[in-house]
Parts: sequence; C-alpha cells; structure tokens
Amino acid sequence: MESSITLPVFQDGLPLYEQLYRHLVGEIRQGRPAPGGRMPSKRQLCALLGVSMSTVETAYSLLTAEGYLVSHPRSGYVVADLLPLTPDPAADVPPPPPAPPKWKFDCSTSAVDTSLFPFSSWARITKEAVYENPDLLQRGHPQGDLPFRAALADLLGQYRGVHCAPEQVVVGAGVEYLLSTLLQLLPGHNAVALEDPGYPTAYAAVARNGRRAVPIPVDAWGMDPEALEKSGAALAYVTPSHQFPSGVTMPVGRRIRLLSWAYGGPERYLIEDDYDSEFRYASRPIPAMQGLDRVGRVVYLGTFSRSIAPSIRVAYLILPPALLERYRKVFSHTACTVSRFEQEALRRFLVQGLYGRHLRRVGSLYRRKCAAFTQALAAIPGVKLSGQGAGLHFLLTLPRLSEPELVERAAAVSVRVHPLSRYCHAAPPVPATVVLGYAGLTQQELEGAAAALAGAWT
Amino acid sequence: MESSITLPVFQDGLPLYEQLYRHLVGEIRQGRPAPGGRMPSKRQLCALLGVSMSTVETAYSLLTAEGYLVSHPRSGYVVADLLPLTPDPAADVPPPPPAPPKWKFDCSTSAVDTSLFPFSSWARITKEAVYENPDLLQRGHPQGDLPFRAALADLLGQYRGVHCAPEQVVVGAGVEYLLSTLLQLLPGHNAVALEDPGYPTAYAAVARNGRRAVPIPVDAWGMDPEALEKSGAALAYVTPSHQFPSGVTMPVGRRIRLLSWAYGGPERYLIEDDYDSEFRYASRPIPAMQGLDRVGRVVYLGTFSRSIAPSIRVAYLILPPALLERYRKVFSHTACTVSRFEQEALRRFLVQGLYGRHLRRVGSLYRRKCAAFTQALAAIPGVKLSGQGAGLHFLLTLPRLSEPELVERAAAVSVRVHPLSRYCHAAPPVPATVVLGYAGLTQQELEGAAAALAGAWT
Repeated sequence: MESSITLPVFQDGLPLYEQLYRHLVGEIRQGRPAPGGRMPSKRQLCALLGVSMSTVETAYSLLTAEGYLVSHPRSGYVVADLLPLTPDPAADVPPPPPAPPKWKFDCSTSAVDTSLFPFSSWARITKEAVYENPDLLQRGHPQGDLPFRAALADLLGQYRGVHCAPEQVVVGAGVEYLLSTLLQLLPGHNAVALEDPGYPTAYAAVARNGRRAVPIPVDAWGMDPEALEKSGAALAYVTPSHQFPSGVTMPVGRRIRLLSWAYGGPERYLIEDDYDSEFRYASRPIPAMQGLDRVGRVVYLGTFSRSIAPSIRVAYLILPPALLERYRKVFSHTACTVSRFEQEALRRFLVQGLYGRHLRRVGSLYRRKCAAFTQALAAIPGVKLSGQGAGLHFLLTLPRLSEPELVERAAAVSVRVHPLSRYCHAAPPVPATVVLGYAGLTQQELEGAAAALAGAWT
Repeated sequence: MESSITLPVFQDGLPLYEQLYRHLVGEIRQGRPAPGGRMPSKRQLCALLGVSMSTVETAYSLLTAEGYLVSHPRSGYVVADLLPLTPDPAADVPPPPPAPPKWKFDCSTSAVDTSLFPFSSWARITKEAVYENPDLLQRGHPQGDLPFRAALADLLGQYRGVHCAPEQVVVGAGVEYLLSTLLQLLPGHNAVALEDPGYPTAYAAVARNGRRAVPIPVDAWGMDPEALEKSGAALAYVTPSHQFPSGVTMPVGRRIRLLSWAYGGPERYLIEDDYDSEFRYASRPIPAMQGLDRVGRVVYLGTFSRSIAPSIRVAYLILPPALLERYRKVFSHTACTVSRFEQEALRRFLVQGLYGRHLRRVGSLYRRKCAAFTQALAAIPGVKLSGQGAGLHFLLTLPRLSEPELVERAAAVSVRVHPLSRYCHAAPPVPATVVLGYAGLTQQELEGAAAALAGAWT
C-alpha cells in the first residue's frame, strides 16, 4: 500500500525537520496514510522535498520514538495502529469571573497592614537562608525542619502558654491545608462541629474533605457545650482567642467545659484555631486552651498569615501524642508543603527577635487604628460596638436599620461592610449587625469610612 | 465564705505580678477557693504578701480577663464557676522512629543532584523578588499569580506541547497537595485507577482522601486500556513520559487508546503526571498527552521538585475547562499554598532563561551519570537493564538470583536498592528486578556502587 500524504510548505522560523515532523503528525492523525500504511522512503521524501537526508531522518526518528511510525527492517516505515479519535468539539476556557467592584473603603476582614513589614531584614535573611544552607535543597522532614519546629515550640510556649515538644509540631502551607491534613488523620470523624456564626473557610474545608459541618451556636462565651454534646460530633473547631466573627474571647470556665466534653468520650478532639491571638488591646493575650489540656485532646492551629503577611504561607499544627503517632504512620512519606529556605528564613526571623519586634510595632499600629475607628463610629447615634478588644475586626449593631439597609447604604457611599448573617447558619441575627475589619485601611481612611457611614446611616 | 489560699513564695526572674498570677491559677484550679468562693481583698493580699497594690491589681485583672475570677461591685472578687477537670494521665510524646541506616551508596529514587544548583542567581532573584514587589505581601489569586501562571503556560507549551491558557494553571505546594485538590473537585469519583507497578505516593494520596485505589497492570506500553475499561473507575492516573518505576515511555498509540477510553464515558478524566519528562537521553522529550487531547479530559500535573530541587515546593495542575469552572466555585476563597515571593522568584528564574540553562547543565550531568552507571552494571554477567532512556532511575534484572537475594546481598555491601515488588500490587515480578536511582550519587560513587554490586551478586 502506497502512501498518499500531502507535502508540507516550509516557512521561516522553525527548523525544517521540526516543520516536517509536525506536518507528518497532522497527516497521520488524519489517516494519511491509514494505520498499517507505508510511508514514503526517506530517499523518496528527500527528493520530493528537496531537503537533506538528515532532515528526513530526524523527523522519522522523532515519529518513531513517539510511536507514530514503526520501522520494519525490510519494508521501511509503516504507520502504527492508531485508533481514530473522533472527539466532541472542545470546550472553551470559561471567561474569568467578573472583576470585583472597586471600593473607596474596604472594611472586609481579610486584609492586614503591611506598611511596617521589615523588607530589608526579610530580604537579607531570605538571601542568607539560601546562601548558608546548601543542604536545604534536598528533601526535608515531612513535618518541617526540626530547628524551625523548635523555634516555633519556644515561641508558642513563651507567648501562648502552649505545652509542646518540637516533635509535635507539623508545619504546612496554610491553615486550610493543615485542616485537611488533620481530617485525613481522623477518617472516621464524619461530622465536624463548627461555630455558628463562624469562619467560612473552616466550613468550606470540612465540606471539601467530604465531612458534614454541624453548626453549633456561639453565645457570649463561645461555643455552646450543651449543643455540642447533643450534636453527636466527636470533633469540634473553635476560635477561643477571638471568635470569628463575634469577637468573643472564651473565658477559662467555658474552655474547661469544652475540655471536659472532649474528655467525656473516646476519640473526641478540639481544634483550637488561635486566630488573631497576637493582637489584644485590653489586656495581655489569654493563654491558649492547649495549655490547659493535660490529656492530649486539643489540636492547636496557628498561622503567620495575619501576623506577618497573607502571602507568607506558613501555618502550624501542634498534635497531641496519640495523633502524632498516627501522623507518623499516615504521612511518613509525604513532603512538607513549605519550602525549606522559607522555613529557615522564618526561623531566623523568630530567633533573631525580628518577629517579636514586628509584632510589637504592628500591634501598636492596630491599637491606634482600632481606637480611631471605634471612637469615630461610636459617635453615630444608636451604634453599639463589640469584640473590639482583640484581633483585627469588631461588630457594629444599629437596631434602627435592617441588616440589608446597613450593608446597602454603606455600599452606596462605597464602603464595603459584611453583614453578620453572611457567617450565620441559624436565623439571621437581631438587632442588625455588620462586621468591620480595619487592618487594611490607614487611620485617615478609617476616619473617612466612619464619616461616610455616619452620613449613610442617618 | 472566706478563702483558704496558700501564699506564693516569690523568686527571682519573673515579675511579681506574673508569679502571683501563676500561683493563684494553680490554687483556683485545685479548688482553693472553691467555685463561688471569695478571694482575699486586694488590700488584704497586699498586706499579707508585702507587695505593692499594683502587683495585686495586675494579677487580679489578668485572672478576671481570663475568666478565673468574677468581680462583684460590692462583695469583691469571687472564683468563677469552673468545672473540676479530672483528666486521665497524659500520654507521653512517642519517641521518634529509629534513624534510618546509613548507606555507603544509596540508589533509592528520591534524590536529585543539587551540585549544579545556581545558588548565587537564586539568592539574587529571591532578594529582588522581595525588594521590588511590596504588593506581593497581600493575598494573591487562589490559583497563583497570573504572571507566574503565564510563564508556566509558555514553558509547558514550548517544552511539553501542552495547550493551555494561563487561566487553566493552578499552582500548589507539591504534587500530593494538587492531587488532593483534584480529588476534591471530583467528589463522586470513589475509585481511582493507578498504575501497577506504580508511584506509592499516588496510592497513599488516594487512600488519605478516602478513595479506593484500583491497581491497573502496566505492560510494555504503559497502563492497559482494557483492564482500565473493566475496572469501572472514571479517573486514571498515568505517568506517560517515564512510567514509575518501569521506565516505559508510552507510545502515541497507547496514549490515543487511553484518550478514547476517557472520551467513552461522561466525567472520565486522565491525570497525566509528567514525571521526569525534563530528562530524556535517547531522543528529545516526547510531547505531553495533554497536547493530544482536544476535548478536555486530561489533567496535566508537573513539578519543579525533580528539575530544580526537592525542597522547592512548587507544582502545577493544568485543568481542562469543565474542571476549571468547578474549581472556581469550590476553591474561590482559598489561598494559594505557594508564597507569592517564591512564585515571583521562580517566574524570574523561568523568564530570564536561568531554568532552561539549569536544565541543560543538569540534564547533561545525568546523561553522563546514567551512561557510567549502566555501562559498569552491564558488565555483570546476566544483567539486563531497561527504562534507562529517560528520568533518573532504571530497572535491573538478574534472573539467576531471587529478588530478596538481590536486595539483601546489595545491603550487605551497603548499597541500598529497592525491589520492584515494593511498587507492585499484583504478583511479584519475574525475573527478579530492582529499581536503581542514580541522581544522588557522584559519578565516582556510581562506579563504586557498581563494583560493590558486581561483587555481591556473583
């Protein structure tokens, strides 16, 4: 059977063998020659195309290496037995979602103030971490490098009252990743109790991992232990330092009630997300619940994305002994998700005292911002504020308007505020409440936002 | 009810208020005073301890802030209603697993050669990426920053024949993380077809995500399409460039068979892990299967951990349009797991041509190592090698010994080799075969290892 290929039209740019190869791939995929059919001999093709032997040889050897052609010692090159593909028409790449609106004042809660970020120190230690540690190129420990974990254990012991050995620390690229990791250690925990109102990211992570999120009401002291007990869940996620979004700090009595819930059944665990614990304005930070736990039923979770910057993807779990043993079995061959150079840079940032200094500077900035914003907002008649003693957001209540009115009138003057009901799974809250984050705005902008809100709401 | 607390013994070091606070926490937690009981008045305690009023005030206000005490306007400070906790004895942190043995020659497959890593360029661009991009501190796009994704799409189009828009790229901290991400996009895909023999990390990731791994035999051209069709799985993970561990490169006919399997049912997807595609010695790299797919049923997966260094945690998925749409719904609020500074550093590494140069240098080093090692091993009587045309490992068969004999005799001369059966789910392979990685050893060490193996196996 003789071939019936068309001949290529050569153009400038790509090498001739490449153009010939591409042309022949197209021909073969369109059935010229059909599977089993013979290709022109190399010499024939040279003559037909007026190219050198090596051009044809290279193209044929590529086609053979990739399996388009089979070379037979006597009969030359034959097209391989390729299945015809009759594909559906290709789907187009969906257009990107519309760009979010530009706000004059964005009071959502995810921003942080990066104006005090110590660029020159960070650039210096990043460079040193690369230069001075060539051994950090090879694969490290799945939990993160031990010197970094030791620095973290020190930090958490000193600042947060966490009791742990460096062996218990698991470093990972963000809180969501570590939540997934933890759920993979607890495959039988199908229901996860979450705070209501609560952190949407935790709800989403639970759902993505195929578990059922069980909303548990939050009262003035945090998650309700009786509702938790009734829920039947054996795993509960709480934010005791500064509940998101209510701003409640859980008093020690409630912490002990939750611990005693955990001790009341086998395999019950509390996840303590120590969210925003770095920033507390009324008194010093309240020690972590993990430090009260003497049995090993609290999994502590923290991150540098709020205290340093959202783009630094370093978070950490502290596993109790029983879960550490399980981790070592399930994750022994995985790779840590944080680059070792970044771990080493952050270790230097911690042990050289740069992190402590940064926290003090940025904490005092947030304190001033919070004072300026709350003072200006408190002047609006009827406004009540809560949860402003810690963290980077607070709640504002204004009973005379409805929640949609609060949000829409704010939007009309280009101030973005989130309704509390956005974070609620039970009935919408009464009186009307919005969540105000202030970290991403300057003091001047905060005063502007407060003035705009005062006008919009009166 | 009057209190019955013991008094602290002050020591040097901590401030007095802190010592008093800690002492009182201990007392209260041991029921002195019992819940509801009255604390000594501040003035009483000053007098008893001989400390200043501000010391006692600070300690009491910390105890009140944390919820140990409640302040009543008339009756002073009363212990909060704390539940007594009667914990089980705490579990100890389990001792770390024993350190792995030290090998004279480690021929396992996970190491790479980092001797050519361009430290000074990397340190320079890392520093520049921090200094020149202060805006990279804030939260970025969940899929990774668009300029980096554009550079990746260019690279993959040029080197791997991948057809994609930057919008289709998802950057993540490692192949395992991205496999989890993909499984979360396909929650109904309970069975995942994996190559047998195959990559243990893929098996582990599937199991950790609560899916069932279905081993599908690999023949001389890769995954068997008939067994795949029979398996009932709608998701298959394959390594066409250089199958792990057999070293097979999948010819185009088999690729088309697998594509036609994917097109044969709704929601069928192929995961193409383009493992080790950067290193090919016999001919130029074979284009990715993704480039053959015109319908959108191939998810392409790649990483820099082999081509640059294992500790650089940057991998990427190319999602077909249908899955991209789903990703945007499910992951729209998540944070990318790779630091933005690291994305920017790697982008510069790519577009400044440093990556291409590094690949050429290290590829030619691996080619020399592979040649030296295979040449020395081929001299051992009865030895057959396969899969050495690409990647960083190959297979060695020696029918005259059993597989355990091959491994144990190698271990006796301190050469670590892995048996092929380690990666097999079906019956152990015949004849006896071991997997040899060479990237982590120098040329001299490889010659030493080959000499040691020659002695051990004859």
